[in-house]
Amino acid sequence: MPVVHVHIWKGFSEERIKEIIEGITNVFVKTGIPSHAVEVIIHEIPKAHWGIEGKPATESRKDSKPPI
Amino acid sequence: MPVVHVHIWKGFSEERIKEIIEGITNVFVKTGIPSHAVEVIIHEIPKAHWGIEGKPATESRKDSKPPI
Amino acid sequence: MPVVHVHIWKGFSEERIKEIIEGITNVFVKTGIPSHAVEVIIHEIPKAHWGIEGKPATESRKDSKPPI
Amino acid sequence: MPVVHVHIWKGFSEERIKEIIEGITNVFVKTGIPSHAVEVIIHEIPKAHWGIEGKPATESRKDSKPPI
Amino acid sequence: MPVVHVHIWKGFSEERIKEIIEGITNVFVKTGIPSHAVEVIIHEIPKAHWGIEGKPATESRKDSKPPI
Amino acid sequence: MPVVHVHIWKGFSEERIKEIIEGITNVFVKTGIPSHAVEVIIHEIPKAHWGIEGKPATESRKDSKPPI
Repeated sequence: MPVVHVHIWKGFSEERIKEIIEGITNVFVKTGIPSHAVEVIIHEIPKAHWGIEGKPATESRKDSKPPI
Repeated sequence: MPVVHVHIWKGFSEERIKEIIEGITNVFVKTGIPSHAVEVIIHEIPKAHWGIEGKPATESRKDSKPPI
Repeated sequence: MPVVHVHIWKGFSEERIKEIIEGITNVFVKTGIPSHAVEVIIHEIPKAHWGIEGKPATESRKDSKPPI
Repeated sequence: MPVVHVHIWKGFSEERIKEIIEGITNVFVKTGIPSHAVEVIIHEIPKAHWGIEGKPATESRKDSKPPI
Repeated sequence: MPVVHVHIWKGFSEERIKEIIEGITNVFVKTGIPSHAVEVIIHEIPKAHWGIEGKPATESRKDSKPPI
Repeated sequence: MPVVHVHIWKGFSEERIKEIIEGITNVFVKTGIPSHAVEVIIHEIPKAHWGIEGKPATESRKDSKPPI
């Protein structure tokens, strides 16, 4: 405990993913939970499979890109 | 709000996926929620990793196919 | 197949929840999937436990309400 | 994008939950994502419904408590 | 690893829930994974919020009951 | 009902995945639920995207391997 599921667009660099894992873990460590108890599971979703505003993000968020 | 996670077998065509995103978004728009607030996340699962009746669907649902 | 998880704020009326279940099921029925194969699971989340813009929605979306 | 689902034991104080929402959001803001795009959904699970080591945490983690 | 999320109707007895946690953990222990690495998270969903066949299970599965 | 989501590292053999599907289904069959009502959905996560102890498991669990 805790278990954290993160859903992001495909394309974040491995460096950004490491920062996300480390950053989220630290949020819980600050509350007194040991880091070995924190699991952070990253789910990569292609932009074409992420709907927002009724359309795939490839159309409705054409200019947004995952951070590299 | 809302966030909708859809789990389907791998193999739906992009056209079907667009219809799913649009259709689910409209269900919420009809209740008065703006479409920009609706996120629909599609998780594709290979049939071999979807168990039903105690077996992978590749065995227990051999003749079912995702809509193309 | 499919399995759909819907995450909404606590407070939707039972009538709205029925419409969501029926509407999402129909999206798949239109693609040729039989309605008995569609499972729609509704997760109600208190607004205080739904973060948006770095704060609970009770603060950052004070004036938004679930549809009744 | 992103959507983050956090699963924790029931019993975190509202103050801790606010810190979790704010802290996780900031992890993404640091990568350049605007805070209004980050949704953090907190799922509270009773310890009796969280299994670890083959038993409910009420038995296998009798002395662990959520941070208040 | 692994993390298992179980979604069931509200109403399973605590005895059944213990059996589910123990049984699922054992499935992984048999593959050589230590039991302390297996987390089983039980999500109880009211029958009225579980849609099947386009209706809440309170209507479409009126006679089914969770095991007590 | 039930719907079970299993999150594991990428790399389990198809034989192990079949055992997991069969084993988890049997846990519910023993409580009186018919096997055709049990859906087990396997999510494979690359070790680099599974954080534990604040790092990807490729670093913090370098020597652990999925069962083949």
